[in-house]
Amino acid sequence: MQLYSYIKGEIENGSIKKGERLPSKKSLSAHLKISTVTVETAYSQLMAEGYISSKPGSGYYAEGFEEEETVENILKNESFCSENEPILYDFRTNRIDTSDFPFSAWAKLSREVLSERSEGLLNACHPQGIMQLRTAIADYLRDFRGMNVSPEQIVIGAGTEYLTGLIIQLLGRDNAYGVENPGYGKVYEIFSANTSRVFPVPMDEKGASAEYIAGFGINVIHVTPSHHFPLGIVMPVSRRQELLKWAYSKDDRYIIEDDYDSEFRYIGRPIPALQSMDKNNRVIYINTFTKTIAPSMRISYMVLPMSLLSKFRSKLGFYSCTVPVFEQLTLARFMEKGHFERHINRMKKIYRSRRDILVKKISEGRLGEIVSISGCDAGMHMLLTVSNGMKQNELVSSAAKNGAKVYSLSEYYSFPVADIPENTVVAGFSGLIGRDLIKGAEALEKAWL
Amino acid sequence: MQLYSYIKGEIENGSIKKGERLPSKKSLSAHLKISTVTVETAYSQLMAEGYISSKPGSGYYAEGFEEEETVENILKNESFCSENEPILYDFRTNRIDTSDFPFSAWAKLSREVLSERSEGLLNACHPQGIMQLRTAIADYLRDFRGMNVSPEQIVIGAGTEYLTGLIIQLLGRDNAYGVENPGYGKVYEIFSANTSRVFPVPMDEKGASAEYIAGFGINVIHVTPSHHFPLGIVMPVSRRQELLKWAYSKDDRYIIEDDYDSEFRYIGRPIPALQSMDKNNRVIYINTFTKTIAPSMRISYMVLPMSLLSKFRSKLGFYSCTVPVFEQLTLARFMEKGHFERHINRMKKIYRSRRDILVKKISEGRLGEIVSISGCDAGMHMLLTVSNGMKQNELVSSAAKNGAKVYSLSEYYSFPVADIPENTVVAGFSGLIGRDLIKGAEALEKAWL
Repeated sequence: MQLYSYIKGEIENGSIKKGERLPSKKSLSAHLKISTVTVETAYSQLMAEGYISSKPGSGYYAEGFEEEETVENILKNESFCSENEPILYDFRTNRIDTSDFPFSAWAKLSREVLSERSEGLLNACHPQGIMQLRTAIADYLRDFRGMNVSPEQIVIGAGTEYLTGLIIQLLGRDNAYGVENPGYGKVYEIFSANTSRVFPVPMDEKGASAEYIAGFGINVIHVTPSHHFPLGIVMPVSRRQELLKWAYSKDDRYIIEDDYDSEFRYIGRPIPALQSMDKNNRVIYINTFTKTIAPSMRISYMVLPMSLLSKFRSKLGFYSCTVPVFEQLTLARFMEKGHFERHINRMKKIYRSRRDILVKKISEGRLGEIVSISGCDAGMHMLLTVSNGMKQNELVSSAAKNGAKVYSLSEYYSFPVADIPENTVVAGFSGLIGRDLIKGAEALEKAWL
Repeated sequence: MQLYSYIKGEIENGSIKKGERLPSKKSLSAHLKISTVTVETAYSQLMAEGYISSKPGSGYYAEGFEEEETVENILKNESFCSENEPILYDFRTNRIDTSDFPFSAWAKLSREVLSERSEGLLNACHPQGIMQLRTAIADYLRDFRGMNVSPEQIVIGAGTEYLTGLIIQLLGRDNAYGVENPGYGKVYEIFSANTSRVFPVPMDEKGASAEYIAGFGINVIHVTPSHHFPLGIVMPVSRRQELLKWAYSKDDRYIIEDDYDSEFRYIGRPIPALQSMDKNNRVIYINTFTKTIAPSMRISYMVLPMSLLSKFRSKLGFYSCTVPVFEQLTLARFMEKGHFERHINRMKKIYRSRRDILVKKISEGRLGEIVSISGCDAGMHMLLTVSNGMKQNELVSSAAKNGAKVYSLSEYYSFPVADIPENTVVAGFSGLIGRDLIKGAEALEKAWL
């Protein structure tokens, strides 16, 4: 792993140039006095990740590493709004339908908070957030997620991205962090921006590969057990136990459980959070209100294991809470008065009916014979595997020509791997109303049949 | 510097234990094939910072490095509220008087924003913040700070602490970051939490020592030129030019200008921001609304030089803006309608009169003969140098016994240095009304006379 990191780093910083020949496995193992198997393992990983390539009979060569330095590239980012394509039906995966948000209840509570004009509204709050909100979250987690946590363990922050950065500061930048590959692209980017030791972990049918994690020297793993993004895998209890066992076997191992869309589960009973199965203080639980309330509301929270609490307070307790007290007070009341629960239940019904409409239209309609659907027992998107001879890019471009936008599965791989399904695309259903889902599916029919 | 960092690291991580004897200068220089002067420089710095000590005729020994791991320690942090001392007059330095905040104007604008219920209120905004607020800030900086910046250059974030973390991610953790010593304690903590290469820079009468910065291999320096905290130095133009010249002479050098209380200047004309003197894209300007509006409102902003803008967007553009759109919209209107300007002017008058009351009471009263006042041409605090034979700790404790709380200057040194004035304390005046300032000063009279 040292060798792998070293060569990767040298390629990234340009010390090893594109096209440069690497030493042969034999000469490197002799030079470093390590086994050829070790060198081979490092080279294989670098190949799998696209850092180097091999030419048969000739050796290993560095691939180019291009930083995306242009404003144009970043403007393509989903966070930016402007798009001029004639897309009528965008099956985006991160679309929250805010039209169903109980805005008037929220506004009423906001006005109440403003009119009370309490001292606390202007003064700095506890670094972990106001106690009232942390208590409301602890109650919610107990009632709806079966988690037994104290408000003391909860840290409120301005978004999961911010909190993930805090976790890295807490555990230390020198850990070897594993992230799911494929996965939510930002997770990989956040880790990359904060540590140089982030490693893609391949997925098997149960989720992040425990074998790989253990074998590759990772000591902190970021996972989405409730509903993997984008594969849709719900991690079975057996894999959860494997991961916990892995974490327990060394003192510096932790699991970051990102429970980002656990609220929206359609089939079967919810599986307990990893956090609630953890008896040894090794799971950091993280969740957000961005998906359940509104993307403009930057409120997330994490639940620290008791053992990390004093470390957090001594090492990072100087940080002010990043969420305005006004928002915290409003959200706390929104939860206390049951609005949050009602809203979640309502959105779950809405998203479920959208999911059902799309599933029915595709599986019972003309696409039924060539499309198989997966990954939508929970969450806001599904995978469509299409057997019409087209590959991902064709599937996406032919859909676009017909006014529908679906997404290549390969987009979600931070690192390319050999076994990406060639004919699978990702389609979100949360942001489209029923009529548009049907019309969108009809556009896919035109494109793919 | 390498040697210094290495030994410091070994002591911090416990590889070199407390009491362990270090190699002699001579043997180390022979072993590493470097000059004894180099070793001496490193050892001197480590001594100055308390990592090692010398025993005459015997050599150098590592000092203990204790991590403050207890909850008790962190509860002492200013951010936490509970204090049970019988302190009637707390001359805290970071106290904002929120009772004069035009809350009804703010609440009215908040209600307006809520009632319009615009789409934008629930959807994610541009990663740098909403354009309306960035434009309002650019206008403000032009009109009141003489800065010519484009809204494109502005990044809104949930507090200076968060933005400082972003700057470190942007410039890279491997830079050698210099922070003023003494200085605002959190600055040192933020850098320490995000990079292992943070170095204390001593102050001279003009501010951060340019000679030291250049000589010690630092390449990014964090400064507070408008009004140094806590020494109160306003950096003269000559030093500003020296710093800019230093920055221009190498490609990887940057200045972070923290303009945190530039709004409150009482004597003389404002000195232009370093940012506005910078012709070569080397100054990152950062400021906050925490001190001008309310501590509960986590809104700060930074102005990136044009040259860093595309790097920011490509490297960190994936981060969502951390400030709720609701707060951004309200603040933008608050600024557009002139409320912010009026509020600043009003608070400046209020703080100036509090400053004048305290200065007058001390200098014209019984304390006049033993107390000299400095550092209060701007900002919210002053230095009191007391010639009654007491040292800092006595000054603080005798004041406390009489119901007044002042602060040891040495508290603000992240690293101890030899020349900390022994009889100087820090007194903030922004959080006390006139009557309490007078009673507080009377308590100091009882304590110190």
